[in-house]
Amino acid sequence: MLEELKKRVYEQNIALVRHGLIILTWGNVSAIDRASGLVVIKPSGVSYDSMKAEDMVVVDMDGKVVEGELRPSSDTPTHIELYRAFPNIGGVVHTHSTYATAFAQAGRDIPPYGTTHADVFYGPVPCAPALTKEEVEGEYEKNTGLVIVRAAGDYEAVPAILVKNHGPFTWGKTPEKAVENAVTLEETAKMAVLTEKINPEAKEVDGYLLDRHYFRKHGKNAYYGQN
Amino acid sequence: MLEELKKRVYEQNIALVRHGLIILTWGNVSAIDRASGLVVIKPSGVSYDSMKAEDMVVVDMDGKVVEGELRPSSDTPTHIELYRAFPNIGGVVHTHSTYATAFAQAGRDIPPYGTTHADVFYGPVPCAPALTKEEVEGEYEKNTGLVIVRAAGDYEAVPAILVKNHGPFTWGKTPEKAVENAVTLEETAKMAVLTEKINPEAKEVDGYLLDRHYFRKHGKNAYYGQN
Amino acid sequence: MLEELKKRVYEQNIALVRHGLIILTWGNVSAIDRASGLVVIKPSGVSYDSMKAEDMVVVDMDGKVVEGELRPSSDTPTHIELYRAFPNIGGVVHTHSTYATAFAQAGRDIPPYGTTHADVFYGPVPCAPALTKEEVEGEYEKNTGLVIVRAAGDYEAVPAILVKNHGPFTWGKTPEKAVENAVTLEETAKMAVLTEKINPEAKEVDGYLLDRHYFRKHGKNAYYGQN
Amino acid sequence: MLEELKKRVYEQNIALVRHGLIILTWGNVSAIDRASGLVVIKPSGVSYDSMKAEDMVVVDMDGKVVEGELRPSSDTPTHIELYRAFPNIGGVVHTHSTYATAFAQAGRDIPPYGTTHADVFYGPVPCAPALTKEEVEGEYEKNTGLVIVRAAGDYEAVPAILVKNHGPFTWGKTPEKAVENAVTLEETAKMAVLTEKINPEAKEVDGYLLDRHYFRKHGKNAYYGQN
Repeated sequence: MLEELKKRVYEQNIALVRHGLIILTWGNVSAIDRASGLVVIKPSGVSYDSMKAEDMVVVDMDGKVVEGELRPSSDTPTHIELYRAFPNIGGVVHTHSTYATAFAQAGRDIPPYGTTHADVFYGPVPCAPALTKEEVEGEYEKNTGLVIVRAAGDYEAVPAILVKNHGPFTWGKTPEKAVENAVTLEETAKMAVLTEKINPEAKEVDGYLLDRHYFRKHGKNAYYGQN
Repeated sequence: MLEELKKRVYEQNIALVRHGLIILTWGNVSAIDRASGLVVIKPSGVSYDSMKAEDMVVVDMDGKVVEGELRPSSDTPTHIELYRAFPNIGGVVHTHSTYATAFAQAGRDIPPYGTTHADVFYGPVPCAPALTKEEVEGEYEKNTGLVIVRAAGDYEAVPAILVKNHGPFTWGKTPEKAVENAVTLEETAKMAVLTEKINPEAKEVDGYLLDRHYFRKHGKNAYYGQN
Repeated sequence: MLEELKKRVYEQNIALVRHGLIILTWGNVSAIDRASGLVVIKPSGVSYDSMKAEDMVVVDMDGKVVEGELRPSSDTPTHIELYRAFPNIGGVVHTHSTYATAFAQAGRDIPPYGTTHADVFYGPVPCAPALTKEEVEGEYEKNTGLVIVRAAGDYEAVPAILVKNHGPFTWGKTPEKAVENAVTLEETAKMAVLTEKINPEAKEVDGYLLDRHYFRKHGKNAYYGQN
Repeated sequence: MLEELKKRVYEQNIALVRHGLIILTWGNVSAIDRASGLVVIKPSGVSYDSMKAEDMVVVDMDGKVVEGELRPSSDTPTHIELYRAFPNIGGVVHTHSTYATAFAQAGRDIPPYGTTHADVFYGPVPCAPALTKEEVEGEYEKNTGLVIVRAAGDYEAVPAILVKNHGPFTWGKTPEKAVENAVTLEETAKMAVLTEKINPEAKEVDGYLLDRHYFRKHGKNAYYGQN
């Protein structure tokens, strides 16, 4: 079932390790098959070294396991809320990557200080407010998804968010793109910390430069890349 | 004697290098066989490149070598005090990993700023007070162990400590778990430094989020992982 | 056509990855064949993993593709302006390397704090002013080149510049030298950040030390290396 | 001539790369054969990738090449002054490693904040004063050596120094030990920066802890390692 998608989800989970975004088992990638409404996701707490493509778990939109021997990622309900609310996405990524997580712990949006940011994120990457006591003690992972959905603005223009005191989630049209966005987010966060250290009065990029760079890569007048 | 445990201790010493927690010979992993009361530990000052599983040294609870050609780690008396005081642990790790050591040198506890910390450490990781002149000039390594034991709170809830002006020690039910805790500690320390740089007013995670994350992974209601 | 140069340009693009200056597809190296006035450059948005030497694109000084199946880097017009204005260069490099980009985002020149800097850059590495709205909304990449040319001083003495809110460009007699300069720039930027953290009152290197180190490596009395 | 020593010097030059202390060609290791008074040193400006053991250059104590096709490191006169003044050393290392160089650029001694430092350096690592205009414009590299010798205290107790606005030099009984000291110096410098960030009021390690750790490894009562 969904063998091709399982392979891609597996490979993108491994890519997180290769990009240095994951240590131990702290992260997960999923993808959705919109035709069937089924989600393929990493199993919970399994070592990246021993994991195989066939270990990926298939769940439905209620989080029920449809196929797979292993328990799905404990963050599955969060992923599902994102697929529900963001109709044009095909993949979701969660990491505890160092700099993006530090911004989440600091409770701050990541400001767009340059074109590295603007190429992918059309504005600040928001830090969602902390979950309330009730939200944490209730259906925590599902509520995390709901908080993200509420705090995200245009989910296609800024395909990333920080969950306060927790860490980043990114998404994209495909799981591959969601992973790329996680890579960019981490580098962008690192550059932002350094920018503020080099110049505490650093200013966000001007709107017209933000526009230019974002639309170099996105939309009908895009001219970056081969398509 | 204890060949299987020697192999595991050897592999976890090597894992410290792979995780980037060790340079040169600055660290050691041990494990205890509770049935016999014997401890297996890395030899002192031996290069990780040339070390073999059979070089691991077996000592008794008085630190006397029971098997092995090489001298055991000079930190052996510290490990033994921890095994003596913490009945439920099976492994101990000492490193000079960069960020955790910097916190130890700064003489500060590592505050729990997020879920990365809360998943493993149920509260701040304490920085034990410096040893007194008498403690340093006496049985230094043994006294280091005694200082740790006095400064540690619930050793199962927070399986790590910083020794002031020295560096971190971690422990766990197994040597593998103790190494995992050393990995988490280092990453947690790095994120904490960054968090404070991004927001000098950053606050510790709320108690209910700390609870939620810790008990996702620990205790009878844990639902993270495959068990 | 220009097979040997394509191979070198390809290899230097790959070298950017090996030196840790590039993630995803964020960077490009070009070289010029002064005899024919043709420029060889990386294709746009192609993954470094799958790229081959024959994928390099040949363009003329108007940016028109003369040979190659793929679209050239979107930064091609910037490279061309540099080749036009700087007659003694043979290679140009653009990256989003972390520390140099952070200086560009902070809008600051990189001060020459030591001999690591002075060995290659004979004075501060300037941060060019931001492009105006008109420059961004017009021929953006060409205007980026014009801004660089205006802001650069002696292009042979300081073979690098930062474009505000964007990132670094470096150049050299050959593409290999341009890449070396990109490596030095990134390390120099990192050291400058750290220098200011260690001593906020740190001073730029004295003129006579700057002279000594620069002329150890450059000019007719150079005595560094084998030539 | 001195084939065994050439091989060791070559291997230790390569070790600098492996330890991440060197990029491009920024560093050199030498060793002395005290019996003949000959020094083996890396050739100047040769790439670490293509360098071979037989490329090492043999010079006498006046810096005259005794054997070797290539020009010796331009820093050779500095190394020679150290061999002349420090009779018990067998190897010298110069790098531009990031954190130690940042301290040199900041013009500050590296304070002993913990046992990682105290295990190898018995007190602060001094930053030598900048060379005067006359010293720079005269025999610069030889004068660098003389400045080091004047600024170093007990060269066996603190086998490292920073040259202001330049970078670190380390030494040791053997070239292998000198490289180890360069590794420790860089890590110690990094930890010191972080320590001051975590606690701007951090204090140097107490004298009795400095003593304990240094003499665990050095002198007749040493009990670290296998000898």
